[in-house]
Amino acid sequence: MPHPNDPSLRSFVPVDVASDFPIQNLPYGVFSTAALPTPRVGVAIGDYVLDLWELEQDGRLADGELIVFAAPTLNPFMALGPKVWSRTRARISELLRHDNPELRDNERLRERALVPMARAKLHLPITVAGYTDFYSSKEHATNVGVMFRGKDNALQPNWLHMPIGYNGRASTVVVSGTKVRRPRGQLKPPTAETPSFGPCQRLDFELEMGVMIGQPSPIGEMLTEAQAEEMIFGFVLLNDWSARDIQQWEYVPLGPFQAKAFATSISPWVVTREALEPFRLQGPRQDPPPLPYLQQAQPNNYDLQLDVALRAAAMNKAVNICHTNFKYMYWSSVQQLVHHASSGCAMNVCDLLGSGTISGPEKSQRGSLLEISWNGTEPMELASGVKRTFLEDGDSLVMRGWCQGDGYRVGFGEVEGTIVPAG
Amino acid sequence: MPHPNDPSLRSFVPVDVASDFPIQNLPYGVFSTAALPTPRVGVAIGDYVLDLWELEQDGRLADGELIVFAAPTLNPFMALGPKVWSRTRARISELLRHDNPELRDNERLRERALVPMARAKLHLPITVAGYTDFYSSKEHATNVGVMFRGKDNALQPNWLHMPIGYNGRASTVVVSGTKVRRPRGQLKPPTAETPSFGPCQRLDFELEMGVMIGQPSPIGEMLTEAQAEEMIFGFVLLNDWSARDIQQWEYVPLGPFQAKAFATSISPWVVTREALEPFRLQGPRQDPPPLPYLQQAQPNNYDLQLDVALRAAAMNKAVNICHTNFKYMYWSSVQQLVHHASSGCAMNVCDLLGSGTISGPEKSQRGSLLEISWNGTEPMELASGVKRTFLEDGDSLVMRGWCQGDGYRVGFGEVEGTIVPAG
Repeated sequence: MPHPNDPSLRSFVPVDVASDFPIQNLPYGVFSTAALPTPRVGVAIGDYVLDLWELEQDGRLADGELIVFAAPTLNPFMALGPKVWSRTRARISELLRHDNPELRDNERLRERALVPMARAKLHLPITVAGYTDFYSSKEHATNVGVMFRGKDNALQPNWLHMPIGYNGRASTVVVSGTKVRRPRGQLKPPTAETPSFGPCQRLDFELEMGVMIGQPSPIGEMLTEAQAEEMIFGFVLLNDWSARDIQQWEYVPLGPFQAKAFATSISPWVVTREALEPFRLQGPRQDPPPLPYLQQAQPNNYDLQLDVALRAAAMNKAVNICHTNFKYMYWSSVQQLVHHASSGCAMNVCDLLGSGTISGPEKSQRGSLLEISWNGTEPMELASGVKRTFLEDGDSLVMRGWCQGDGYRVGFGEVEGTIVPAG
Repeated sequence: MPHPNDPSLRSFVPVDVASDFPIQNLPYGVFSTAALPTPRVGVAIGDYVLDLWELEQDGRLADGELIVFAAPTLNPFMALGPKVWSRTRARISELLRHDNPELRDNERLRERALVPMARAKLHLPITVAGYTDFYSSKEHATNVGVMFRGKDNALQPNWLHMPIGYNGRASTVVVSGTKVRRPRGQLKPPTAETPSFGPCQRLDFELEMGVMIGQPSPIGEMLTEAQAEEMIFGFVLLNDWSARDIQQWEYVPLGPFQAKAFATSISPWVVTREALEPFRLQGPRQDPPPLPYLQQAQPNNYDLQLDVALRAAAMNKAVNICHTNFKYMYWSSVQQLVHHASSGCAMNVCDLLGSGTISGPEKSQRGSLLEISWNGTEPMELASGVKRTFLEDGDSLVMRGWCQGDGYRVGFGEVEGTIVPAG
């Protein structure tokens, strides 16, 4: 049987060459329909959602243990572990192949199990156990450092030695399409003597990837590179909305708190680690070499293109404001996870790790407005008469990501959020 | 019917005058026994645990909605809200009163429902949704500031304007009695050129109270003082174990991460907010006055005494190393919660908020070894030949807390942790 990543595979479901969801992808998500409003697990294929609950009930996924697709989240499925993830993906691939009549020619089952995506409502795919956010793009950390501390002290002394990260707020991780209310908070511009409380004036996005941890690790134990990799179920696009003015006043000495607690948006489809396998590559050379516990025997970065587009309420269509690549990340997701557990910190099923803002070496590759507008000093013109330094009410921000194969792409769909007033 | 806090109430269960658990307390916990190893909800009374599952099955708590005490955590009970919390406590108080024959004279039920505490194994009382740790003792923040930045810049500019806090790690909150493995991490003493990886050399405790949030708040909404107070279910003792050397190297600019991710210990009994009502008092005067959203119309501090004792493996008994009081906290738990939600951050049932280290104005009131040993420069002699700056393997640390009433105390029991080697 061909491997589910085989580029020559085709599905009987029509898939456009530019689609994010060919048979080589098969990302998992949670959806519902007007006809059946119970959220359940599905897989994206072309313009359709394959309803795994229907397949399960019909005995098509059956090896007995998979009573997990009627759940409103991926948590129970993810908890089953990498062998089951792999076997299930292979079986779904088999069922969708153009040369397999099992589903293709079973009209009754096909009608029930293949839902047009336009009719599907997509939900938050997991109940997030813990959310951790890293800061692992050297270009991003350098840009921020130059802005606030000057060129000579751009990177903090610890930055090249470990993936710097902090605990984020899991309760406000939301799915793409959820409106984002402008946060209020304490603001103290440099010119003010004392802080005031009011709507954020410097609302930003951060382009990130999110890693879904699919397996737990016990308290008190460290992880090897191989163990950490096995625990990664998949990836999503992640927008770490940030209130720069709240952050600036609150973050010393314990880090960002309310500045990043109001919302974090993720894309609804979780692309599996297995589907990204053909797009692995070596990350940037690490100098100084990391301490032994952070060293990598294999390439853990991915050639994954990323786009950010912004549309103000007055504009007809979104304008691209950033095009970069996940491959630039200095610290890989595997290194982040190894470091996360290094103190003996237990990891849980459905922990979510944000990569940190993904910038690249070019000006067009900056993954936040803080960098694009150089802390508000260089407004950008989106359309005639529409300028931006930070986000305004009504602005809609869209991130997209994909790995380009030969004649197909393994894509993530999008994560979108529109800003609504603080009220 | 007398209020459950009435100081004149007595139980038919014998309760020593020095007991933490008189009928005026009635803290909730989760326990199991050798005879029935299923964890379930109980209430501490003297040297006994009252098994609420037994009472529920016997129809004694019945108003139909309380099918929550067979659970292995307090989460389902807490989710029912403050009216049910109050009604249930009143009913338990009534059942335990010395002049009520209902349980007292029902030998069959009494035998089953009253479990000697010595036979009960106590479990983590809640599944922690999110863990947030604050930094709200002015004395503690000042001590730390003087140590690292000198007297003139001891408090950061933001400290007097908001309860500074950060997201902690919920996955490693453990119950009293759980051994704490010395964490490993990146260490870079000032004399070293580059960091190394190894066991923490400056392992510390932090004396805190933990607040259990019992009700959710929606994303995008702020809270009033009254709303925040109603959401608080109760309090526990909390030891925020800290690796000072890991912290020192990692915490700029995103705050503590692995330095506090390896373990946080809490006491098994959750003392309700209602039981602490008689011990409320006004906190320290806040100058400058807080911004309007943080102002308080009522006293939200508590007169709650706190002790810390340390026993090295070679010692026969623990020695008291700190005696302080929760009343010194500059920012109250209510203010912390209001601030936590101020950006629109959603709160969940069973979020846990750490108060921050509770120090007091006196030297004997310092709530961490960092302060007691003044960053390791003033070793303390525990017993003949036993000196400490930070914690060593085999050390056992015990925190106790209680509110002293007239002839009774509302106590928390203890939170204990013993350090085991990094291995």
